[in-house]
Amino acid sequence: MRTQVAIVGGGPAGLLLAQLLHTQGIETIVLERYERDEVLSRARAAVLERGLVDLLHEAGASTSLDENGLVHEGIRLSGNGQDFRIDLKALTGGAVTIYGQENITADLYAARDALGLTTLHGCSGMKPRDIDSDQPFLTFLHGGKMNRLDCDFIAGCDGVHGPCRKEVPDDAAQVVEQTFPFGWLGVKSDAAPVVDELLYAGSDRGFALCSLKDAARGRYYLQVPLSDAPEDWEDDDIWEELARRLPQDVADALPGGGLSGRYIAPLRSFVSNPMQWGRMFLCGDAAHIVPPTGAKGLNTAASDVQYLYHALTGYYRKGDEAGLAAYSNTALARIWKTQRFSWSMTKLLHRFPDQSVFDLQMQRAELAYLAGSEAAQTVLAENYVGLPY
Amino acid sequence: MRTQVAIVGGGPAGLLLAQLLHTQGIETIVLERYERDEVLSRARAAVLERGLVDLLHEAGASTSLDENGLVHEGIRLSGNGQDFRIDLKALTGGAVTIYGQENITADLYAARDALGLTTLHGCSGMKPRDIDSDQPFLTFLHGGKMNRLDCDFIAGCDGVHGPCRKEVPDDAAQVVEQTFPFGWLGVKSDAAPVVDELLYAGSDRGFALCSLKDAARGRYYLQVPLSDAPEDWEDDDIWEELARRLPQDVADALPGGGLSGRYIAPLRSFVSNPMQWGRMFLCGDAAHIVPPTGAKGLNTAASDVQYLYHALTGYYRKGDEAGLAAYSNTALARIWKTQRFSWSMTKLLHRFPDQSVFDLQMQRAELAYLAGSEAAQTVLAENYVGLPY
Repeated sequence: MRTQVAIVGGGPAGLLLAQLLHTQGIETIVLERYERDEVLSRARAAVLERGLVDLLHEAGASTSLDENGLVHEGIRLSGNGQDFRIDLKALTGGAVTIYGQENITADLYAARDALGLTTLHGCSGMKPRDIDSDQPFLTFLHGGKMNRLDCDFIAGCDGVHGPCRKEVPDDAAQVVEQTFPFGWLGVKSDAAPVVDELLYAGSDRGFALCSLKDAARGRYYLQVPLSDAPEDWEDDDIWEELARRLPQDVADALPGGGLSGRYIAPLRSFVSNPMQWGRMFLCGDAAHIVPPTGAKGLNTAASDVQYLYHALTGYYRKGDEAGLAAYSNTALARIWKTQRFSWSMTKLLHRFPDQSVFDLQMQRAELAYLAGSEAAQTVLAENYVGLPY
Repeated sequence: MRTQVAIVGGGPAGLLLAQLLHTQGIETIVLERYERDEVLSRARAAVLERGLVDLLHEAGASTSLDENGLVHEGIRLSGNGQDFRIDLKALTGGAVTIYGQENITADLYAARDALGLTTLHGCSGMKPRDIDSDQPFLTFLHGGKMNRLDCDFIAGCDGVHGPCRKEVPDDAAQVVEQTFPFGWLGVKSDAAPVVDELLYAGSDRGFALCSLKDAARGRYYLQVPLSDAPEDWEDDDIWEELARRLPQDVADALPGGGLSGRYIAPLRSFVSNPMQWGRMFLCGDAAHIVPPTGAKGLNTAASDVQYLYHALTGYYRKGDEAGLAAYSNTALARIWKTQRFSWSMTKLLHRFPDQSVFDLQMQRAELAYLAGSEAAQTVLAENYVGLPY
């Protein structure tokens, strides 16, 4: 087999890149480890920046998004006696769109299938080879035999545990990592969301987030110790703890009832530099993870995809290798700013086990200042809706 | 002796309060521990917020300030490959004024003397008494004998080591303190300043600040370990270290030559709450200290003075005690925001001994984001020129 760009990973990053490259007449083959129904079962909330929405339009995969995505023009913040709305629209002219990650993935598969493009599911043992030559290839097991895919370039969209990042030589890779000393317990409710816009709540008992899966169903998150297990939390415990951390009007409106999809995710920041080696380029979780507080995970993948898409287009259209050569530095400059934002939101709203009285006072002062300063709200808003590419 | 408001401390905070109260016909006596020439020898740089400039006008002590103060409409920041100006004027409509603290003190004494108001220097053993009654008084040694000053209220403008704060009962006082693990080495140069506007420089070797005493003379500061002593630093060592930390154009222009007034100041944040007890009210350093990075020390004192001045005016003019009752909370709300700003500027530009690679990356990302975001620059600018009272 041969293609121009071999894409490792059939999640939203790899599929979006493939669709965008197709619009420029660049051939791709997507290799995915899991079967499609498994990929599509990865339900995750997503808050889409304008840039990602635009890319999905450009990729021809926005019909359902345009119909079902919920455009949010503000968020609400509370804690330490403060309770206020950040008017994203008024402060930046922008907004975000709420749309499940699994829906994006499904839309991208539908678009890819309609074009008759090749996606191989159930690939194992994928290994990039000769990436520092101009004839890289991949080997992988598929259909009971070893296969070889020759290509010009390899795009590693294979997530944090994928094979591509391992190909960057150890002595060339710098990994920067920060683990936060708590996790998020996340749950879904089949009852209607209790809020119209996302509510980020700090409290003496820790962070809580009221979100929504779609217009009909709520999502809730609680900061919990990493020593907790999901099964430690009964439905009623979760509702009670949410009520303690949320503003009174929201606490009073919580619907109660059954909760599903319970999990506890650790919070961490992770960046691997460089994001390229020879003819292999990493996108999204393959190179970096953000804590979820700024809702940036999928958006950072889209940011990488956008840079790599333009760099590959420059190469194939004009023989210009400058974009490819600069890819890692260009992508990382924005990634670090997004890490900064996610870290600042995390620090603003969570309780930390080692927080001194001074630290707590600074956290209070940050929120009080934010509540009263249009400039500070603009900083939050312009990051929330997404910094320019 | 009897007066309406007994002011402990004849530094800029106490003198400013006294002058402002006089404009409302409220009597004061100022008690100062040191002789006047000692007070006036406390030379310190000062970056005056608009609010302080306005108060000095209202106090009738602004003639020299208006003539000799240097209005600065911007500051420069550098570090980690960034080098940019914050246009205070364009971003906020405001500016700051550079004018030595010792000049402010001299101007206020001149104004007080011209009115024939009482200032007692060389007072020792000052002790507020019966402050939880409505007949408080002070006892103190002066002129070789013990004196008693009866009053309605006591204003503690007596600095961090003064006697007033000690009168807040231990079980009622909450002290929040943070010591930073480094100090500032400060020096004066008789050569012309190397910059027109203040330059705050982060670097791999630590922080440096180029400032000016007045239009003709420069001031310089270097982050140094607390284990250093001023005499460890020869003139040439200081110039060389400044050159290593500053942008090339400024490094090349450093004048060299003799340096004087060398000292090392630790950096710390300190807030004592409440700032009032009975009929005693604390202002300025008596209640709080900020690290010098945001140039806020004198401005926080002015902020307190302004609140106390209005509260006392409300009491004497209209019998309204609400301002006095709320004084501590009102003053502290702004103090905490100023602490937040000073802490954020300190974190942005200094090297910390325990900084992780992630922390360093966040610091880099903060500076890179600030360099490119008008909203982030506005946040810095509105704090630098001074939040509203």
